[in-house]
Amino acid sequence: MITVEQATEYVAQYASPNVPQSVPLEDALNQFLAEDIFSDLDVPSNDQSLVDGYAVRAADFSQRVHREKGVACSVQLEVVEEVTAGNVPAFRVESGRAVRVMTGVRVPDGADAVVMVEESSWQQEAGLPLGVAHFNTCEVVAGQNIMPRATSVRYGQLVLSCGKRIRPAEIAVLAQVGRTDVRVFRRPRVAVLPTGNELIDGGFVPGPGKIRNTNGPMLAACGKQLDADVLDLGIGRDEPEQLRNLIERGLSADVLVLSGGVSAGTLDLVPAVLEELKVRQVFHKVNMKPGKPLWFGVGNGNKDNANNDDRSTLVFGLPGNPVSSFVCFHLFVRPAIRRLSGQAAGEVGVPKCSALLAQPFEVAADRTTYHPARIDWSETGPTLTPVLWHGSGDSRGLVDANALAIFPEGTGYYEAGQRIFCHPLD
Amino acid sequence: MITVEQATEYVAQYASPNVPQSVPLEDALNQFLAEDIFSDLDVPSNDQSLVDGYAVRAADFSQRVHREKGVACSVQLEVVEEVTAGNVPAFRVESGRAVRVMTGVRVPDGADAVVMVEESSWQQEAGLPLGVAHFNTCEVVAGQNIMPRATSVRYGQLVLSCGKRIRPAEIAVLAQVGRTDVRVFRRPRVAVLPTGNELIDGGFVPGPGKIRNTNGPMLAACGKQLDADVLDLGIGRDEPEQLRNLIERGLSADVLVLSGGVSAGTLDLVPAVLEELKVRQVFHKVNMKPGKPLWFGVGNGNKDNANNDDRSTLVFGLPGNPVSSFVCFHLFVRPAIRRLSGQAAGEVGVPKCSALLAQPFEVAADRTTYHPARIDWSETGPTLTPVLWHGSGDSRGLVDANALAIFPEGTGYYEAGQRIFCHPLD
Repeated sequence: MITVEQATEYVAQYASPNVPQSVPLEDALNQFLAEDIFSDLDVPSNDQSLVDGYAVRAADFSQRVHREKGVACSVQLEVVEEVTAGNVPAFRVESGRAVRVMTGVRVPDGADAVVMVEESSWQQEAGLPLGVAHFNTCEVVAGQNIMPRATSVRYGQLVLSCGKRIRPAEIAVLAQVGRTDVRVFRRPRVAVLPTGNELIDGGFVPGPGKIRNTNGPMLAACGKQLDADVLDLGIGRDEPEQLRNLIERGLSADVLVLSGGVSAGTLDLVPAVLEELKVRQVFHKVNMKPGKPLWFGVGNGNKDNANNDDRSTLVFGLPGNPVSSFVCFHLFVRPAIRRLSGQAAGEVGVPKCSALLAQPFEVAADRTTYHPARIDWSETGPTLTPVLWHGSGDSRGLVDANALAIFPEGTGYYEAGQRIFCHPLD
Repeated sequence: MITVEQATEYVAQYASPNVPQSVPLEDALNQFLAEDIFSDLDVPSNDQSLVDGYAVRAADFSQRVHREKGVACSVQLEVVEEVTAGNVPAFRVESGRAVRVMTGVRVPDGADAVVMVEESSWQQEAGLPLGVAHFNTCEVVAGQNIMPRATSVRYGQLVLSCGKRIRPAEIAVLAQVGRTDVRVFRRPRVAVLPTGNELIDGGFVPGPGKIRNTNGPMLAACGKQLDADVLDLGIGRDEPEQLRNLIERGLSADVLVLSGGVSAGTLDLVPAVLEELKVRQVFHKVNMKPGKPLWFGVGNGNKDNANNDDRSTLVFGLPGNPVSSFVCFHLFVRPAIRRLSGQAAGEVGVPKCSALLAQPFEVAADRTTYHPARIDWSETGPTLTPVLWHGSGDSRGLVDANALAIFPEGTGYYEAGQRIFCHPLD
């Protein structure tokens, strides 16, 4: 049986980014950049005032500082102009003069500092249309409250790299460099197909031997949370022809996620039907708990990907138990969807963190075990508490969890305070 | 000037959940439950097999255990029935007999254990239509591989509480208890209105004194990331009548987020126009960096909320610098939107974590400072690295960050390895 790490590598070998396409900036959130982004301007485009105040010459202040104790410092300068947002200065600041400036406007020539308006008062004066500014500070140093041109971004600079996820901060930078459209990798299409004669639709009360379909809605939600386009195929029965038709539809997607029918049971038809449809098995069974019966293969090639190569539909046969399905999705399907979405290969791995066990915990694990757990943040860092959980059939246990704690193979007793690795959940 | 904590409390006083509404389960992801959810059944509904195998009587094994060293244990039982998924057992398991069962099916009466199919082989035998199972293990204990009825969920049990966020795990539990619709709090409508004569639309090259509108797209993305319905009002000019019209439209939303126009500048018209439109100021200016000029007030009441009380439109006047806007959104607008979305009052706070500083860092903070930073996970826990950042005008600095590091008021030199609190982003 292969390990989780080996299975992860196999999946990675078959996952490559979808074709790039152009989308309006307002639709790009949470997608992945399919191009490097360079700036078409300097930011700021000129030396810029960081505050509302007066653009001045620092030397006008240093010359007038009263160094004697108890004597208040006082400088007054004639105001020659006011520059409001969206406008540019017309005058140069000469000695003895100041220009009133708003946050973000260009600092006038001649000025080398801006004094905040809060450190001044203003007075009308005969013959001076814009009056006089009195300053109650003399501590003015050249460069203060000025952001020099191109401090944040230089013309031509690479500001965002291909493969980066577009969050609100990236939206801001894209808008700043003038992008109204942006190339992103096409969102993956993910088909979801729970299988089993025991499954009934949610609106009904299960008769003897039946259970409600929970994997379908759950796996669809897992896909949506990754911004995939989800195709819900309904319920597949343990009946070859119906199963074949549904799987054929699912193979039109980038990823087909089945659940159930992959164990050693009499009606576990999924692998056989997949083989019939030329879906080639890459691996079956992984040394993990829950999730051992995981099946992974690749369907017939399509050319709708970034490299125009024969990238195939990725087919995951997840175990039927809901928590097994959930864990396998998180560990294997999620990175595949991320990679198809265009995330850089080195970054698609399931995020891993660690925390100190909040209480002793015993786990009898003949395989690497993923146990639902809760990360809390104390004053001294993260702690981890495994939640009450009754195994792969107990999805109720997942709702108290925000992480999967990883317990390596082997029966183990863990002390409180021991560091445990875990995968955070959303 | 009030503190960040005081400002947070003020905002919380005016934020209450929207009216509940019923949505189909497939649309409920990432919304917040507006009802307690109780189970309409036991899960599992009967004692259930956890594996594919044979339902047996443990006593049939213990009686036949060969305790002598070196002698292989061997038990054989007549197979009287096969129960596949979706079906129920017809027969009782008597001594000497077994029933073949699939994962998830009901364990037949009389049986008290299930032996995995991998620990057996099967043989046809004359006169026995379902043959005989040979077991290569004798270590069978009562209860093994059986999940007793109602282990995961009992009929009538509270499985999810009002105010809980609906993730894929909650979708699974809702489906399990038969919910095809669910009551959630209406998604907040958030209007976004950047203001300033300096702003131009993204598609154009800024002329002298102009900059591109980055706050509009960024704040819209921030809202969408919280699953709010975002109304983008375009750009507000520093012109009272146009501004008044746009703000009036914005007041139809649950939350109106303005940026710019709230400082001490000559054309900072926003507070005056808001006052004219009967938006009552709750606070103006917070002792933080960036973000000091933050303005918060409440507009005329509407009754479209859960308590049918006079909940008013929450109006945030964010500073015009992009990073100031971003930080204020994260600290104040985000919790408000979460609360309107129905998140429990105790849980809407901005998530806070801590990490060890990866390198020495010096910060000259006359106010509590939020510095973009990167959390990395080392073998021994999280570390924090402040990113290169040139202040509130430098949105480029945000793209390398996944957290905001919190440096308390006062100039400070921090050693590598010191614990720093931070707010994780996205």
